[in-house]
Amino acid sequence: MTRPCILFSQQWTDLPLEELAQKAGEWGYQGLELACCGHHFEVQRALNEPGYCQKKLELLARADLSVPVLSCHRVGQVVCDLVDARHEALVPDYVWGDGDPAGVRQRALEEVIATARAAQELGVTVLSGFTGSPLWSYVGGYPGPSPGVIAEGFQDFARQWNPILDICRDCGVKFAAEIHPGQIAFDLYSAEMALDALGGREELGFTFDPSHFHWQGVDPVEFVRRFPDRIYHVHVKDAALTLNGRTGLLNSYLPHGDPRRGWDFRAPGRGGIDWEALIRALNEIGYQGPLSVEWKDSGMNREHGAEEACKFVKRLDFEPAARQGGQAFRES
Amino acid sequence: MTRPCILFSQQWTDLPLEELAQKAGEWGYQGLELACCGHHFEVQRALNEPGYCQKKLELLARADLSVPVLSCHRVGQVVCDLVDARHEALVPDYVWGDGDPAGVRQRALEEVIATARAAQELGVTVLSGFTGSPLWSYVGGYPGPSPGVIAEGFQDFARQWNPILDICRDCGVKFAAEIHPGQIAFDLYSAEMALDALGGREELGFTFDPSHFHWQGVDPVEFVRRFPDRIYHVHVKDAALTLNGRTGLLNSYLPHGDPRRGWDFRAPGRGGIDWEALIRALNEIGYQGPLSVEWKDSGMNREHGAEEACKFVKRLDFEPAARQGGQAFRES
Amino acid sequence: MTRPCILFSQQWTDLPLEELAQKAGEWGYQGLELACCGHHFEVQRALNEPGYCQKKLELLARADLSVPVLSCHRVGQVVCDLVDARHEALVPDYVWGDGDPAGVRQRALEEVIATARAAQELGVTVLSGFTGSPLWSYVGGYPGPSPGVIAEGFQDFARQWNPILDICRDCGVKFAAEIHPGQIAFDLYSAEMALDALGGREELGFTFDPSHFHWQGVDPVEFVRRFPDRIYHVHVKDAALTLNGRTGLLNSYLPHGDPRRGWDFRAPGRGGIDWEALIRALNEIGYQGPLSVEWKDSGMNREHGAEEACKFVKRLDFEPAARQGGQAFRES
Amino acid sequence: MTRPCILFSQQWTDLPLEELAQKAGEWGYQGLELACCGHHFEVQRALNEPGYCQKKLELLARADLSVPVLSCHRVGQVVCDLVDARHEALVPDYVWGDGDPAGVRQRALEEVIATARAAQELGVTVLSGFTGSPLWSYVGGYPGPSPGVIAEGFQDFARQWNPILDICRDCGVKFAAEIHPGQIAFDLYSAEMALDALGGREELGFTFDPSHFHWQGVDPVEFVRRFPDRIYHVHVKDAALTLNGRTGLLNSYLPHGDPRRGWDFRAPGRGGIDWEALIRALNEIGYQGPLSVEWKDSGMNREHGAEEACKFVKRLDFEPAARQGGQAFRES
Amino acid sequence: MTRPCILFSQQWTDLPLEELAQKAGEWGYQGLELACCGHHFEVQRALNEPGYCQKKLELLARADLSVPVLSCHRVGQVVCDLVDARHEALVPDYVWGDGDPAGVRQRALEEVIATARAAQELGVTVLSGFTGSPLWSYVGGYPGPSPGVIAEGFQDFARQWNPILDICRDCGVKFAAEIHPGQIAFDLYSAEMALDALGGREELGFTFDPSHFHWQGVDPVEFVRRFPDRIYHVHVKDAALTLNGRTGLLNSYLPHGDPRRGWDFRAPGRGGIDWEALIRALNEIGYQGPLSVEWKDSGMNREHGAEEACKFVKRLDFEPAARQGGQAFRES
Amino acid sequence: MTRPCILFSQQWTDLPLEELAQKAGEWGYQGLELACCGHHFEVQRALNEPGYCQKKLELLARADLSVPVLSCHRVGQVVCDLVDARHEALVPDYVWGDGDPAGVRQRALEEVIATARAAQELGVTVLSGFTGSPLWSYVGGYPGPSPGVIAEGFQDFARQWNPILDICRDCGVKFAAEIHPGQIAFDLYSAEMALDALGGREELGFTFDPSHFHWQGVDPVEFVRRFPDRIYHVHVKDAALTLNGRTGLLNSYLPHGDPRRGWDFRAPGRGGIDWEALIRALNEIGYQGPLSVEWKDSGMNREHGAEEACKFVKRLDFEPAARQGGQAFRES
Repeated sequence: MTRPCILFSQQWTDLPLEELAQKAGEWGYQGLELACCGHHFEVQRALNEPGYCQKKLELLARADLSVPVLSCHRVGQVVCDLVDARHEALVPDYVWGDGDPAGVRQRALEEVIATARAAQELGVTVLSGFTGSPLWSYVGGYPGPSPGVIAEGFQDFARQWNPILDICRDCGVKFAAEIHPGQIAFDLYSAEMALDALGGREELGFTFDPSHFHWQGVDPVEFVRRFPDRIYHVHVKDAALTLNGRTGLLNSYLPHGDPRRGWDFRAPGRGGIDWEALIRALNEIGYQGPLSVEWKDSGMNREHGAEEACKFVKRLDFEPAARQGGQAFRES
Repeated sequence: MTRPCILFSQQWTDLPLEELAQKAGEWGYQGLELACCGHHFEVQRALNEPGYCQKKLELLARADLSVPVLSCHRVGQVVCDLVDARHEALVPDYVWGDGDPAGVRQRALEEVIATARAAQELGVTVLSGFTGSPLWSYVGGYPGPSPGVIAEGFQDFARQWNPILDICRDCGVKFAAEIHPGQIAFDLYSAEMALDALGGREELGFTFDPSHFHWQGVDPVEFVRRFPDRIYHVHVKDAALTLNGRTGLLNSYLPHGDPRRGWDFRAPGRGGIDWEALIRALNEIGYQGPLSVEWKDSGMNREHGAEEACKFVKRLDFEPAARQGGQAFRES
Repeated sequence: MTRPCILFSQQWTDLPLEELAQKAGEWGYQGLELACCGHHFEVQRALNEPGYCQKKLELLARADLSVPVLSCHRVGQVVCDLVDARHEALVPDYVWGDGDPAGVRQRALEEVIATARAAQELGVTVLSGFTGSPLWSYVGGYPGPSPGVIAEGFQDFARQWNPILDICRDCGVKFAAEIHPGQIAFDLYSAEMALDALGGREELGFTFDPSHFHWQGVDPVEFVRRFPDRIYHVHVKDAALTLNGRTGLLNSYLPHGDPRRGWDFRAPGRGGIDWEALIRALNEIGYQGPLSVEWKDSGMNREHGAEEACKFVKRLDFEPAARQGGQAFRES
Repeated sequence: MTRPCILFSQQWTDLPLEELAQKAGEWGYQGLELACCGHHFEVQRALNEPGYCQKKLELLARADLSVPVLSCHRVGQVVCDLVDARHEALVPDYVWGDGDPAGVRQRALEEVIATARAAQELGVTVLSGFTGSPLWSYVGGYPGPSPGVIAEGFQDFARQWNPILDICRDCGVKFAAEIHPGQIAFDLYSAEMALDALGGREELGFTFDPSHFHWQGVDPVEFVRRFPDRIYHVHVKDAALTLNGRTGLLNSYLPHGDPRRGWDFRAPGRGGIDWEALIRALNEIGYQGPLSVEWKDSGMNREHGAEEACKFVKRLDFEPAARQGGQAFRES
Repeated sequence: MTRPCILFSQQWTDLPLEELAQKAGEWGYQGLELACCGHHFEVQRALNEPGYCQKKLELLARADLSVPVLSCHRVGQVVCDLVDARHEALVPDYVWGDGDPAGVRQRALEEVIATARAAQELGVTVLSGFTGSPLWSYVGGYPGPSPGVIAEGFQDFARQWNPILDICRDCGVKFAAEIHPGQIAFDLYSAEMALDALGGREELGFTFDPSHFHWQGVDPVEFVRRFPDRIYHVHVKDAALTLNGRTGLLNSYLPHGDPRRGWDFRAPGRGGIDWEALIRALNEIGYQGPLSVEWKDSGMNREHGAEEACKFVKRLDFEPAARQGGQAFRES
Repeated sequence: MTRPCILFSQQWTDLPLEELAQKAGEWGYQGLELACCGHHFEVQRALNEPGYCQKKLELLARADLSVPVLSCHRVGQVVCDLVDARHEALVPDYVWGDGDPAGVRQRALEEVIATARAAQELGVTVLSGFTGSPLWSYVGGYPGPSPGVIAEGFQDFARQWNPILDICRDCGVKFAAEIHPGQIAFDLYSAEMALDALGGREELGFTFDPSHFHWQGVDPVEFVRRFPDRIYHVHVKDAALTLNGRTGLLNSYLPHGDPRRGWDFRAPGRGGIDWEALIRALNEIGYQGPLSVEWKDSGMNREHGAEEACKFVKRLDFEPAARQGGQAFRES
């Protein structure tokens, strides 16, 4: 009821922000998770151009939209990935520079710091994003990594992200790292390990998107209950298993939308996520932040889908019963 | 009935071959899949030392063991992987050399060629092994690979493996690439793609190990039926899903045996594989090769397990009914 | 279509009846199952105060509400329970008296008789309620009861309830005993035994609430088909299994709403009940009575929920196809 | 391999111990869990009659049987139950006395203390048994207990059992309370509560019987992992769900063996327990105690079954793999 | 979005077409699949009575209804069935004539040819219908048919239907044979055989009704993917499995609506069909034809149901995402 | 334990009876269900040739085999089928005669009567067999039969079989009609109807083969419980569902052994039958007759399989617990 339903702008950067804002408002959204990507939000202009942030806010306000969350998924990916040619498309030219991996990583780190400062400027307290991972290529494959290799990977993660989180702290911003394949944390226990690697510091929590858990066999509800204090942001996206004996969960290099895949993303409510259980779990932990629709369904017209998704979220999100004495559940 | 039950020697290279042979014979095995690893079988000695192969065969014959298959899994891995520090442990020193990736790959390629020649020397017609993959780090992660990146990966695979397969053809040896995570082919459709990349040449077929399909959600029976002419070798190994809501299929960097994993290998018959359906599928396609026990069960004493596994395979492998007119099933 | 959708007032006795009636009317309800509890309906005043019933009916008529069923769940519980301190809260002071168990049971019996008379006064023909049970503490535990102990328990049940049912018969009222844990009848076969204990007399039928069957593993549809002539009243309430390996069906003394429970009640349509199958089963047996929403969902705001539930019931309850020749199904 | 397979004598007290011992030895058992019941083991004689224990041990030794565990299930039940007529059959006459509940409970408490002393005399370090429960009648029924009532029940439990455990500590005996319906602890969370009520004192652990968890929907493996240090004894018994839409888990007062029940006990390996997962979990926690067959299968001849069960346990119990560095898994 | 939602008139032939048209328009339908049955559409009048077709079209146009498909299910059934007394009710008197099987089949064949000509007259390009089968009595029973008997049955099928399809070709009409029990093609492989029997000629495709696949255990999605170019028409009808241990899939001679059946038809969305997966599969193959509601739900008032079904179809049928480059999926 | 394990000779009529008997004895069988087919048992010789039966019994006795059941499946099929060309192979020439359907049916009827007399001669009290069905072609297809057609079919069944059962009664033989697709009774409710059609006369009971129920979705245990007094004979045969999305339960005209089928027969214990539940159900009803292995597994060598099956049955068939007071369960 009271949680705002917002739209993640990442999948719409081909549209001018003004056009997107108007559509989003008409579809019923109450805000945007603004992507630092293309012209939707430019970090360097936000920091250097007086009034830039104010104008963005005014533009959105005309469509009755707020901005509770800023996203730096793409540049965040580069911060501790093994950089290769694919990464050039993820970052602005000034971050990519000459493409030397060490330099790219360093400039990406600085860009995330700049983004945290821009968030403060914009009045936003949650920055969501990817973290990248130096260990991803060892997940599931052969030969497996030794304990030493894993430890080193987490140290690298901590080395890169601690300076960013220091600035986040200074700016009053929390970083919501998305639990997502390809990132340092992609399931329940790797999320524990990532928190541990940073000493559990409070600036780091999670962007929780149930679709990534579903096909891995992890129950999203269990994740929410395991980290009741670390759910800093929520993406609303669904996923469907489409196993038929020949398809597989690793998907044979096939792109989204190919029916030979073993799973795919779906519009919210059209996949396998148990949203009823999920919204109750979010109520249990007292999550008060936005529910942010991330549009990814390669089988449906996106405008049709975005409108349907907003209605779905509003129908889904009911008011919890008043608790007696305000006690919250914690598993002992 | 008629298919020999053999033991893969890779997991036993800490034992002298003579000792392993004696045990394997006592446990009931009829042969070994000999690993080119440690002192079990040394490729360069086999090619350069007269009588080396004959002595190995005699040693095994004393325990009534044959050698229907030779394995070069480790060095095969390096042939088209992105080489890093982990690979040093997989290959002999003379292959690793100075560790420069391009050189290591080239020497690994030559070593596999040498292994094919050694197989011929040994009288073996099937060489099983890994292929490595330049694309593995893109599977499941972010950002996904473009079609161009995938195409280039398969071209690299073809460039590296075609010369090897040419020699295989000359030596009367078939290469049985194991369908396995971390390899160019790890599920049904990636196996199709790998065959296509090589123009479907007959020297390449598959080592079929159902355990790798199970946790990916692929039905091993469907794989067998899809490639009735390409099952060149069979590994007998089981796997169990151990999902409990918190564990996941990508396994959080956890080693085998850790109960927080979402799946793990198991002794044959103690996991989730439907062996009844599988042996019938192998009967349908007329597979006549060995059934090779690969011991991987981190929860069971391996000697207890190897003996149990041999009994399991012999009980499993029944004689098919005589076919009328020899017609084979092919799905149109 | 034609079956009225009503609201059970038991969960709303903190509100004055007038206020509840107004809300219920606005939410779309067509009547109330009036609870003899608090000021919603006072049995002794109904019998002794001229015009009391008429005023209640007029009050409800102002909100376009009827009263097809009267409920005496709480006092009914005491009629053949082993009375202890918990029961004091269930009954009016004049029933509790000095709290001596035998006396309390006798006065509860008389109060249910009085309620049947009040029902007649009110023009209501179905009285729903609990029965209590002298045998509950033996269900599922240790040491189990001997056949003699069970037989004696059912005799006690008959001794207490036959006099009540005699008056029901005289008043033209049927008693709909709720099949519910803690009662003499809590599943399919115990319902058979309870009917048998009373010689199958027609004054006794059942209040059918599918939520109590769901977590016990009983299919509510099978219950309806087993007792086509004895479904005298229907409660609409859902339940969800929330088993995750650690939670259990006996619920570890945990209150409703605690996520460590293995099952819990849910708003209708948000749990595991197959309502589609259920409404068809009620159509098959020709059930014409009301569908009474009993609000119990500790995770949802009750006013939000009551309105949603009324919409759910109306959407659910479709008109059956005309039957040829009016034949009803009976399993031979 | 190394864990002894023993037989629980409780279900065989109609046979003289000598006869049972001979049969058990022939069936392959390595010991007995001796029941303090009938003439199998008489506590007062053990304490007062010199040589009594020695003679029992010698009698068993003639059949190559040891006694690793003593059982006081029946008298333990009475210690904190609400005593009624059913309990008379559970205890010796001198414990029942005049049958006044307070006195019976006190004498039962003293008898358990005497049993602990007798265990010491017998050289046994684990005493298994029931605890009884003042709260059982409130489980699952109506009206539910208030938090105060529950708290009081656990205090009663602590009051009765702490003096017993004090003596256990002095005698070097651990008490293994069976997790079982009808007892203070019957599932995972109630076991946590029971431990908490006693301040986690080490004299109290659990007799773990997976059959009681199965029908409640609790995964026995999760229980083992939750209490790795408190599994003091293991019963081997199976259970099968026999739900068909009409049967239910609370079983309608029906005795074991009646096909209208929704679950029933079964000979080990003939029900729904995942023994493969269970033995691995016991290996993980390093459980070294006996595996004690409790014969309860109302559909099979018990002598046939006891022999089959012994074979089953020996086949089930494989030797775990050697652990590197002895690290034990604990979920953080 | 763009696919018309139409109503199959077969189940409404008791209503004058004008009345049905008015209702269908009000319920939201955009067209009818017109049944050649009763007075809805009379083939001989259409061919012989000038203006007959035009008047029908005008009548429907008044309710804003089009006629994209004509149905000749009943007479089609007779074309290659073993004719018996049941068939008299399926065809007009002039087709039945003296009832001699050979003559009836011949006249039915000619009537389907006439219907194809009438379709052309009406401007309709798809003719849907049954084919009948000389082999049905051998499906599932005893003694099974020899390969020769099956081959002969398909030859009979080809002999009867090829002349019809020749005329279809001349008239620019495609015949959409319904995959349906009782027809020559009733599942995936029999559909392959039927196409093969006709040499794959393009005039023959399928009327796809997922309800017939559901209870046979065939996944309707797999059927759509197997025949991407042959789905010429789609029926929207649901089915539910109602297995409870006693009911069976062959249904014991019981009529629709009897709860002792193991499956039954249901209103769309109220059975077991995965419509989400199905509509995506139809999008994948680029199916552009109508979605035709066939009303069969013996438990629901048909007018209530027809209106609900139209809403269901419109909600179901979403606009697919734009494809890049128009490539269609084909399984290699 | 006490129930004899026998082999059905029908699948072995290519072997001389003497050879089969010797093998069956060696495999461990205790008897044969002798098929009246080929030279295994010739009815007319048995009736007309003195000493014929005695010689058969002596031949079998040399291999320690008894004959508790005689089978007339093939000729029974013809008694009330619609006779066509397929039936010629099922019966002796003197039954087929000129092949005119009415005459063939009459002579088949007389042959079954002769078989009952021969059974008496042989000292056998159970005659198992098929019944045929005039209604089979209407099961599952289109158009469905009217109630009148069904009624007429059952009258035909009664007309044909009542005279046979009269003679059975006179001979002290019971007829065990196999519940089987293609027969008048093929599932639970059609078995009820068949009994009703004969007025429930005691000469008619059932040959119960669980494999035919499995793929229809009927629980064989429920069938046993429904007809506790009518299980006159038991066939031991397994079946496996092999649904993969494309295969279906009606099997597309495909022969046994084709992997495109949706189900197939399997050797006992290698399919989907829950034998544990089944043997307990047979114990519950007190079935004392033989367990007769019917060999049908197109994927396994039949001699290997027959020996394995005998061992399976002996392991399966355990001794039930003694019942107290001999009470039998009946569902009220």
